[in-house]
Amino acid sequence: MKTTENTLSIFALGGINEIGKNMYVVQYEDDIFIIDCGGKFPDESLLGIDLIIPDITYLEENQEKIKALIVTHGHEDHIGGIPYFLRKLNIPIYATRFTLGLIELKIDEHRLKGDSKLITIDSDSKLEFGEVQISFFKVSHSIPDCLGIVFHTPEGNVVHTGDFKFDLTPANNQYSDIHKMAEIGQQGVLVLISESTNAERKGLTPSEQMVGSHMDEAFIKARGKIFISTFASNVNRVQQVVESAMKTNRKLALLGRSMVNVVNVAIERGYLNVPEGMIIDANEVDQLPSEKVAILCTGSQGEPMAALSRLANGNFRDVAIYPGDTVILAASPIPGNEKDVSRIIDNLFQIGAKVIYGSGSTTGMHVSGHGYQEDLKLMLTLMKPTYFIPIHGEFRMLHHHRMLAESVGVEKGNTFIIKNGDVVDINNGIARQTRSVPAGDTYVDGIGVGDVGDIVLRDRKQLSEDGMLVIVITISKGDRKIISGPDTITRGFVYARDSDELLKEVNRLVKKTVNDMQTENIRQWNVIKQNIKKSVGQYLFTQTKRKPMILPIIIEI
Amino acid sequence: MKTTENTLSIFALGGINEIGKNMYVVQYEDDIFIIDCGGKFPDESLLGIDLIIPDITYLEENQEKIKALIVTHGHEDHIGGIPYFLRKLNIPIYATRFTLGLIELKIDEHRLKGDSKLITIDSDSKLEFGEVQISFFKVSHSIPDCLGIVFHTPEGNVVHTGDFKFDLTPANNQYSDIHKMAEIGQQGVLVLISESTNAERKGLTPSEQMVGSHMDEAFIKARGKIFISTFASNVNRVQQVVESAMKTNRKLALLGRSMVNVVNVAIERGYLNVPEGMIIDANEVDQLPSEKVAILCTGSQGEPMAALSRLANGNFRDVAIYPGDTVILAASPIPGNEKDVSRIIDNLFQIGAKVIYGSGSTTGMHVSGHGYQEDLKLMLTLMKPTYFIPIHGEFRMLHHHRMLAESVGVEKGNTFIIKNGDVVDINNGIARQTRSVPAGDTYVDGIGVGDVGDIVLRDRKQLSEDGMLVIVITISKGDRKIISGPDTITRGFVYARDSDELLKEVNRLVKKTVNDMQTENIRQWNVIKQNIKKSVGQYLFTQTKRKPMILPIIIEI
Repeated sequence: MKTTENTLSIFALGGINEIGKNMYVVQYEDDIFIIDCGGKFPDESLLGIDLIIPDITYLEENQEKIKALIVTHGHEDHIGGIPYFLRKLNIPIYATRFTLGLIELKIDEHRLKGDSKLITIDSDSKLEFGEVQISFFKVSHSIPDCLGIVFHTPEGNVVHTGDFKFDLTPANNQYSDIHKMAEIGQQGVLVLISESTNAERKGLTPSEQMVGSHMDEAFIKARGKIFISTFASNVNRVQQVVESAMKTNRKLALLGRSMVNVVNVAIERGYLNVPEGMIIDANEVDQLPSEKVAILCTGSQGEPMAALSRLANGNFRDVAIYPGDTVILAASPIPGNEKDVSRIIDNLFQIGAKVIYGSGSTTGMHVSGHGYQEDLKLMLTLMKPTYFIPIHGEFRMLHHHRMLAESVGVEKGNTFIIKNGDVVDINNGIARQTRSVPAGDTYVDGIGVGDVGDIVLRDRKQLSEDGMLVIVITISKGDRKIISGPDTITRGFVYARDSDELLKEVNRLVKKTVNDMQTENIRQWNVIKQNIKKSVGQYLFTQTKRKPMILPIIIEI
Repeated sequence: MKTTENTLSIFALGGINEIGKNMYVVQYEDDIFIIDCGGKFPDESLLGIDLIIPDITYLEENQEKIKALIVTHGHEDHIGGIPYFLRKLNIPIYATRFTLGLIELKIDEHRLKGDSKLITIDSDSKLEFGEVQISFFKVSHSIPDCLGIVFHTPEGNVVHTGDFKFDLTPANNQYSDIHKMAEIGQQGVLVLISESTNAERKGLTPSEQMVGSHMDEAFIKARGKIFISTFASNVNRVQQVVESAMKTNRKLALLGRSMVNVVNVAIERGYLNVPEGMIIDANEVDQLPSEKVAILCTGSQGEPMAALSRLANGNFRDVAIYPGDTVILAASPIPGNEKDVSRIIDNLFQIGAKVIYGSGSTTGMHVSGHGYQEDLKLMLTLMKPTYFIPIHGEFRMLHHHRMLAESVGVEKGNTFIIKNGDVVDINNGIARQTRSVPAGDTYVDGIGVGDVGDIVLRDRKQLSEDGMLVIVITISKGDRKIISGPDTITRGFVYARDSDELLKEVNRLVKKTVNDMQTENIRQWNVIKQNIKKSVGQYLFTQTKRKPMILPIIIEI
């Protein structure tokens, strides 16, 4: 029995109008397939929030229909939400061997191991759920073992690209299945769902091999130790560092928890080739001549607790950067991280290090894993979709991606720029977008998931800007006279030494307000509290131009 | 009588290892000359702080020696601290006519008018204070009427460049006095103090006229209204917008308080040529056909309350952006503002506007006002200084600037990379840096200057991340039994609906802690409060992984 009028439906629960928390859904009749389950790091306005994950209300309400969570690759914005997802929904997860390795690390960290079903697939796998068959194709990206997905449904084929670029000379043989993509396109694609991260950038993404040759050059020139900071998950880049180190007879040390963990997963599972004995412990670095060591470290985004930042501040145990050492930043700062990265670069120059930094096009030490305009056009050309849904990007990127699609033949009107939650329904070959499902941000703060929302954040904002003032008075039940207080406590407002006079006047105001209300025979505590807030608030604002949170507490005895 | 052993001393009170709050001091024997008095906008970590200004302790302690505050140009990072400076020190201010116009706006805003002495100078002025003569030279920059300064002292000449680029085809005839600079160099420069903002960038800064030709092109192509957002103070760019509008028969409206104020100052003082009747009021925009209007607006840095942001959100009174209108961002985002600017671009695309955005080298709509490496080398070459002090930049920029200086002949060892407060003393032609004066950040928060420091900020940080919990108990003086409470109030911690159970347990813990202490006959309230903080803190951390600020209040009656 069909419970829905909609044959084929496609929507995002995250990843649209944002970079982060990717989660897409393809539903054919009563079979739901989820693609990816990412997290997103909050910006500074979300005070105290640790992580943002998708709102999965729709999935919880329809859990009996969910057949699979398929994960395209192992980046945080595609797997970061999985531990929270698994606490609510016990759904089998399908991913490649390397991606599962990273998911397992995550599950271990959250101590969730046990009944989660993790199923290894590769680009040759074929899955079947009722009338839907699922097949895969390899794509190049900045992490190993990435998949694009094809949903073969009776209504037509739906292709999800995952994150991709076309790299004809990738490091580590991570080629795209370009022939397979051509074949998929030949078979007919009803809907293409394609990532849009670099839709604003002209040209073709440079090849990862460019980094290799620049890395070799830097290794040959360097005299002291060489530090290289990059994303641990960029195993292909790590492979190139390994090769540069081999050519120049340097041993390799790994600094930072995620660098150690991910490199271990990559070696164990065969995604990284490191000669026996090449990797040394951090505490062995100082025992070797400096020109015999290279050090791979985390922290390329300026994260204050990561290895690079601690090295730049001179407080990493076992290893130090000396004048003349070379530090290579083999990553671009993600928007928002520029200042933190600059601070580290400054510290490194102050130590006297040679720092290789700046955009990838200047240094040759970084290339993007996301396709530029020509890559995106090639994907659209190979797939020749009837309908197109650009995903994985902010609005301007989706907008540019639509223009690219139209430039290579997708009909005007056949591109759907959706918002998270907007559903594209396809019946009898006709697609339309008329309805939505719940979608939004769920905040993770400490252990709590979803227990912090707008009110809490608004309070945090006020507290963060102007601090607070607690006023306690004790009043007798009988004659309603003040027995004790007002006592005032401030935090985050002004220095204690500057607030004596101010607080004396506050006390006077509070007494006056309480007494006035007695005279007028107003007995509701709420009204009295409101009046205290008002009079004290006005007074403090004129005196300081600040608006601390005022919390009157009245104790009745 | 000389009170110092040091003949000639040079130091910074702001502007080193930062971009912002520029303030430099040249002292010859007992005569102190201050150069600039800037402000700096705080980053997100300085919760609630409105502005950062230099610590002027040294100047307050030596105020009888101060002869002049000379202001090189009218940018915020060179004049933003003046109102606060004037409240403490009544020193005559020397600046060009346009710069003084902006300083007067600032003084009016702070209602400080009255006894401040503002003295108009130009590049031909000569000042004399005892044995020191001061002369000036014109430099090109992104604001009109900029000066470099020469201090002719018996010890030798000291040159301060101000902010500059070399623009051989500037807009609005803002040429550099290149012949005068050559002459100064010929006379001999003991110390060059030069800005370093773009010391990392190769080549020569592009000319402002490049923007003019791109602006013309955009005006010719545009069909609907044209919105241009740029810094109001970039009067030369405004002039080019005026000219593009004239050529295409468009009237010009000005949106945003600072755009209106600065353009008025520029017109009144003859720095901007606008034909009679060209400027219209905001509420006239809708009365004209859309292809007959251009609109200059503030907010190019994504400031949420500025005109562009309000336009992009559709809540600017009188004026709206319609599909097909063109929006030109004629400014680069300052590091840290990228995200805010991107959000606006997204909103503009959603309205359906044509948006011209991106780096100046892509769009041609922006060029920097700060010289690149070749500009800096040209200044060094013209001045041929014996000693060199790179200023106005973060450490890596100063470092690069030193390399540039050495590449054009400044002797190794003769460049001083100083920190704010470090003093370079020159006696008998020999310069050394051995001592420091107080220097640092003074925070402005509301009306308060300097009354917010580390403790207040630390409290704000804790409050901002995890909120707070106030616990009030009333205890009888006699038998020390709990009469009332514990009552708990939380803000910014968790949603009320989720905290019932949690707070019940907190109450139980508080009662237990108080009772335990009674049993042990511990009577110091401080100890009891500490114990409450500890037990409640531990409990809340295990339950929520959050650390709200806990404020126990004990009322004794």
